[in-house]
Amino acid sequence: MALIVKKFGGSSVATTEKIMSVAKRILDEKKGNDKIVMVVSAMGDTTDELISLAKGINGEPYKFPREMDMLLTTGEQISIALLSMAFQTLGHPAVSLTGPMVGLQTDSAYTKGRIVDISPERVHEELNKGNIVVVAGFQGSNHLGDPVTLGRGGSDTSAVALAGALGADSCEIYTDVEGVYSADPRIVPSARKIKEITYSEMLEMARLGAGVMQPRSVEMGEIFKIPIHVRSTFTKTSGTIIRGDYSMESIEEKSFVIRGVAHDENVTKIAVLGISDTPGVAHKIFDALAKANVDVDMIVQSMRNIEKNITDMVFTVANDDLTKAKEVMETVARDLNASNVLIEENVTKISIVGAGMLGNPGIAARMFGALAKAGVNIEIISTSEISLSCLIKGGHVKEAVNAVHDEFFPKN
Amino acid sequence: MALIVKKFGGSSVATTEKIMSVAKRILDEKKGNDKIVMVVSAMGDTTDELISLAKGINGEPYKFPREMDMLLTTGEQISIALLSMAFQTLGHPAVSLTGPMVGLQTDSAYTKGRIVDISPERVHEELNKGNIVVVAGFQGSNHLGDPVTLGRGGSDTSAVALAGALGADSCEIYTDVEGVYSADPRIVPSARKIKEITYSEMLEMARLGAGVMQPRSVEMGEIFKIPIHVRSTFTKTSGTIIRGDYSMESIEEKSFVIRGVAHDENVTKIAVLGISDTPGVAHKIFDALAKANVDVDMIVQSMRNIEKNITDMVFTVANDDLTKAKEVMETVARDLNASNVLIEENVTKISIVGAGMLGNPGIAARMFGALAKAGVNIEIISTSEISLSCLIKGGHVKEAVNAVHDEFFPKN
Repeated sequence: MALIVKKFGGSSVATTEKIMSVAKRILDEKKGNDKIVMVVSAMGDTTDELISLAKGINGEPYKFPREMDMLLTTGEQISIALLSMAFQTLGHPAVSLTGPMVGLQTDSAYTKGRIVDISPERVHEELNKGNIVVVAGFQGSNHLGDPVTLGRGGSDTSAVALAGALGADSCEIYTDVEGVYSADPRIVPSARKIKEITYSEMLEMARLGAGVMQPRSVEMGEIFKIPIHVRSTFTKTSGTIIRGDYSMESIEEKSFVIRGVAHDENVTKIAVLGISDTPGVAHKIFDALAKANVDVDMIVQSMRNIEKNITDMVFTVANDDLTKAKEVMETVARDLNASNVLIEENVTKISIVGAGMLGNPGIAARMFGALAKAGVNIEIISTSEISLSCLIKGGHVKEAVNAVHDEFFPKN
Repeated sequence: MALIVKKFGGSSVATTEKIMSVAKRILDEKKGNDKIVMVVSAMGDTTDELISLAKGINGEPYKFPREMDMLLTTGEQISIALLSMAFQTLGHPAVSLTGPMVGLQTDSAYTKGRIVDISPERVHEELNKGNIVVVAGFQGSNHLGDPVTLGRGGSDTSAVALAGALGADSCEIYTDVEGVYSADPRIVPSARKIKEITYSEMLEMARLGAGVMQPRSVEMGEIFKIPIHVRSTFTKTSGTIIRGDYSMESIEEKSFVIRGVAHDENVTKIAVLGISDTPGVAHKIFDALAKANVDVDMIVQSMRNIEKNITDMVFTVANDDLTKAKEVMETVARDLNASNVLIEENVTKISIVGAGMLGNPGIAARMFGALAKAGVNIEIISTSEISLSCLIKGGHVKEAVNAVHDEFFPKN
């Protein structure tokens, strides 16, 4: 008898017909005494519809984050009620529970809450009565009892954290792709589905732009040591298992020195030119950015003129943070007496990820070579323990990603 | 400084524009330090839309009452979030709270819960912080923490009960009519708005068909001694005050011997003919009906043939209960060897209500006289301490109600 948490996203429960087919599939696949906990998101466009309703009251509804959470948490509450009815209509006892009702406690950061604790006694009780338990993803409540949403990708996080708190055997994330791929299949037709990947590799892939899983939910999996199975809503084939280490079956997986190629087009490059190379200059720039809540990613400081002690500072931020970053840099550049500030939007970061890189010094050279052969110029390079990233100009994503992917995953 | 609970129904908050105008009105009328608690229903057609969504899963969604409550309670949660945003948009602090969050505890009769207790500490806290508190009507939670709706008219009941638990100075029920009238103004153009009415008179009016207030909420008002002010959403004129006794100002009110004329067209007459007049016959009939959950209203037993000990039993039930009643009566009539069962749907009960009737023996004669003059035949008569009802054939409502109203509220 296994306890399995299964998470279905909004597109899987977008209509009552789809809700019925999710329920049918689950009952078809359920083995004997398996205990099933379903975690579901709001139906299809419900969240967008609720947001547009709120905009009828105030053009900037997120100025009222507490009330937005009161509003948005109704979305999942609707889908859990319907899915629970669907199971019962098909003859299996089921019960729906909201985030607060499964004891999912958050901090008070409305609209982007963090889970602080889960006390899932009610879930165990209902499972022991023979029910399939249908839980609202994306939500919990704070110490006041106010509903709080978990922010982007929150339903995945709910599912993995709940699996951890319940001591589940696994957590299955159903999605519209078949699993995690060695590159984005929309760009790289030869991308292969990854059978197994470690938490830290998956985290690095997600951080570097691979969109399937939110980093928070992978962290939760690692903390609670819950294997996460990312798989398709539409087919029954096995997807990608994220776990602490590879199983014996994945010898094939381990034969590749890298796990995948990630890319991120949401990048802006900012260059502060001609500043005096004295202690404290870097601190001034990045402290000001941090105070404005701008996340800085790659940083390169280059020596332009050693004799005159003149240097350039180049770094990247997300496109979304450009407006904030620009404001900050105008002031800082004036303070530092910089000769110029250059901004280049929509550049691309392309990265390779894999724990195998550590003991394999030739990997970097192979990546640079592949890019060079494809005629792609590298602007910035940065490395972590299990990844290597290159910044390239925008407009070359397809060639660059395919070139690097072909290098490490040769087509037969 | 007064603490006032104000309840707005679904049609008053049907669109975001209407929600904004409710908020504006409340702020316009708010005096200095008044503490305001708003109780609101779901927006316009939301409840119907949710029910039709559920029917996409199962044609009879009320077979799953717990899940229906999980589904339907989202309706008010949406409107409280929006109304709270509206107050804040207009510059007044506000906070929304669901039924469970205001400590409204119910029994576990999902879809028709009864309030068992209210612990409104959170409401007091939020009021003391200067907030307008916006509460979801129609809902609470049971001992498990499951959402439970209160059934028909539940938002009124929430409002009055909450006013009681908070020790409010008054409870204002905003509706699409200007108050309680001496008869239904759609049928009696000369009907006058009642300025004051006692709880027991209002209860009797409601029980006998006057639709403005649900009996349960009036009972709550009486238990907690909270004056209930029924008034219009659209005008600022005073409506009808329901309280324990008349105030000094309502000498004029007291000059009328009756308070109003109520009528009910949702009535079916059932006659069981030719049964033997022996002990236990009435018990057999009405026990069987009670077991089938059919409420019986008027009952008349008449002697048809004293020598042969043959009697007829005539009674009324609501039209909605006809199917159930018919089934029961087929069996019972066979058991009692009745000669026939006659059923007449859509008959009308017309009633006069007023505490003043008690010491006024001529009242009944005046009512019968008015009906006779209008050519309306009376089929059954029944009386209570403060009311007198006559059953008449269907199709004569307008003449009958106007005739009786004219008798007691003469047009000048």
